[in-house]
Amino acid sequence: MTIVPERLDAVPVPTSDEIFDAHRGGKLSTGLTTPLRDARDLAIAYTPGVADVSRAIAADPALAARYTWTNRLVAVVSDGTAVLGLGDIGPRAALPVMEGKSALFKSFAELDSIPIVLDTTDVDEIVETLVRLRPSFGAVNLEDVSAPRCFELEARLIEALDCPVMHDDQHGTAIVLLAALRGACAVDGRDLSALKVVISGAGAAGVACAKILLAAGARDVVVLDSRGVLAAGRGGVKAELAAITNPRGITGGTAEALAGADVFVGLSSAALPEEMLATMAPGGMVFALSNPDPEVHPAVAARYASIVATGRSDFPNQINNVLAFPGVFRGALDAGARRITERMKLAAAEAIFSVARDDLTADRIVPSPFDPRVAPAVAAAVAAAADVE
Amino acid sequence: MTIVPERLDAVPVPTSDEIFDAHRGGKLSTGLTTPLRDARDLAIAYTPGVADVSRAIAADPALAARYTWTNRLVAVVSDGTAVLGLGDIGPRAALPVMEGKSALFKSFAELDSIPIVLDTTDVDEIVETLVRLRPSFGAVNLEDVSAPRCFELEARLIEALDCPVMHDDQHGTAIVLLAALRGACAVDGRDLSALKVVISGAGAAGVACAKILLAAGARDVVVLDSRGVLAAGRGGVKAELAAITNPRGITGGTAEALAGADVFVGLSSAALPEEMLATMAPGGMVFALSNPDPEVHPAVAARYASIVATGRSDFPNQINNVLAFPGVFRGALDAGARRITERMKLAAAEAIFSVARDDLTADRIVPSPFDPRVAPAVAAAVAAAADVE
Repeated sequence: MTIVPERLDAVPVPTSDEIFDAHRGGKLSTGLTTPLRDARDLAIAYTPGVADVSRAIAADPALAARYTWTNRLVAVVSDGTAVLGLGDIGPRAALPVMEGKSALFKSFAELDSIPIVLDTTDVDEIVETLVRLRPSFGAVNLEDVSAPRCFELEARLIEALDCPVMHDDQHGTAIVLLAALRGACAVDGRDLSALKVVISGAGAAGVACAKILLAAGARDVVVLDSRGVLAAGRGGVKAELAAITNPRGITGGTAEALAGADVFVGLSSAALPEEMLATMAPGGMVFALSNPDPEVHPAVAARYASIVATGRSDFPNQINNVLAFPGVFRGALDAGARRITERMKLAAAEAIFSVARDDLTADRIVPSPFDPRVAPAVAAAVAAAADVE
Repeated sequence: MTIVPERLDAVPVPTSDEIFDAHRGGKLSTGLTTPLRDARDLAIAYTPGVADVSRAIAADPALAARYTWTNRLVAVVSDGTAVLGLGDIGPRAALPVMEGKSALFKSFAELDSIPIVLDTTDVDEIVETLVRLRPSFGAVNLEDVSAPRCFELEARLIEALDCPVMHDDQHGTAIVLLAALRGACAVDGRDLSALKVVISGAGAAGVACAKILLAAGARDVVVLDSRGVLAAGRGGVKAELAAITNPRGITGGTAEALAGADVFVGLSSAALPEEMLATMAPGGMVFALSNPDPEVHPAVAARYASIVATGRSDFPNQINNVLAFPGVFRGALDAGARRITERMKLAAAEAIFSVARDDLTADRIVPSPFDPRVAPAVAAAVAAAADVE
């Protein structure tokens, strides 16, 4: 494959002035589905007409999904503890990111979305708050919550709320990684179940990526964190993960895990030295997904791997969550699903892969984030997977 | 004055089908202030560009007002305990009303607004929830919360949140009543301080109306609840009110209060019998504000009073909160005010009166709710009153 770092120039880097100008007053607005032009419009949308609708919902609360905006409204919820690569910067500083996420929901899936940034990092309090807010929205996209709190928080919200809940940093990334790996396998004529996969990073994304690859048929997944290969003796989520990964019982660190491996998935920001890359099996695949600095420069990775992907828009094969989350939530809401299940996530990955399938190359293992076919395909697949449960 | 009940026909009453059709999918939507057309737009509004803005806010949280939507975002908050005339119908059934209110904020004052309906009626929990949500919005419009909880809730939120908070059922009504009474006094050449005012109803609106009239110079205000004239020996808010009203020490009920009174303000839904109306001083004023059924039909009231107003759009002199709340919040947010003070409320009433002043008649003591001059005038006056504190 050809890595073209010159494509950095194809998207001129915005200046700081441009960025701040574009953010003045924020990026979101609310609007009316129908304008209020006169007293009659007011009598329909507000008093006295609205009383008929309120009475109907009081008699049958399920009608709220039909006669309010909640059934197409995603709350983008964050406590600001793990924002982009910036870490725990708090809810106020997280808000521009959440506004951006809400803008993506609207742009890519025609879903309305409001950012909810919370001035608490206590899991009990966040659950309690969202339970109280439950009648106000139709689904929850958890965003930028630090690990390992994010695992408990997501699990508890799924139990507590009768609506779709998904922590996108986990599952959005996992869905798109799986789609990309399916694309890469198709290009190279490989079989996912035969690949030796190494995942560097056992945070939110690493855990979810390992789980979805196993659910999709991968058999040999090894997960690394800062202490080395996950093995028995770790606590919490990592113990769970250790029990279902590392079938060859590797001990040690990146060097031991990577020797002879077919796939490297970087989700930890830890640099991947070229000499270790060189020990991978020939014709391998490198997914260096950390932003803004990939674990290894794609031009270097391309010396050893047949497929190289990053999280950046200025290199080929951008692994971007926006391929997944708009369609996933749209499909779940369209289907009236109570939960976003593993089956729905797998269906989402398959749909992304299907859109890419017709013109797959080593430089194009996933569709462009702006490919307008993606979100509708994902939504349809997710809704169908919800229906057959 | 001429009461024209035929105007009922001027605004054809919407059919139930029309109302439910108009509510399908809800009345609100979210949108982007600038579209995301390509990868460059994405790089500005989302990663990597947004990180610059998040970093800046992390360093100086005050910048959130400049670079997020919060400074023009009003949360319309309700627990669904006192919705329209429907009572305690719960948060889901209250949501269409709150969506309508948000639509009014947008239509009349270009403010963004999101409805927050809460699945709790506990005052402590509501305060706690909004404190946790504080970084998500710029102001709180409390709506349709039952009395007397609404008094404690509003007071505690004003203390707990460093942003404008107003319970519109109290103060929106009070501001517009004061504006209307100023208009009526101008038409009839009367002086507010010389009027004997009777307020029927000591709920959210009644208490606030009594207080604002006293603050505006009224000296003789008598408040009635279902037990009669408020006097010493009542508890809570009513004791407070009893201490500052009823200067002539009237005892008894509506009959005793109304004999010789100049102004009747109905806020209780209790019917006002014609024979009591007949005991008012000649040339009086009747504000029969309960919806949908005024305390007395305006055609009946007009036999005894020189000025008649209701809450309905199908009679002259509609006393409608929409004359106040959009401009009040817009002015408070424009000025960066931390609170909505008594001075700002009085300024809002004066601004509404000023817009009406040039073409006042007995049939037009307040501007039309659709008069485009009102909200900007109110906003400017409220902002100026905030500045001079």
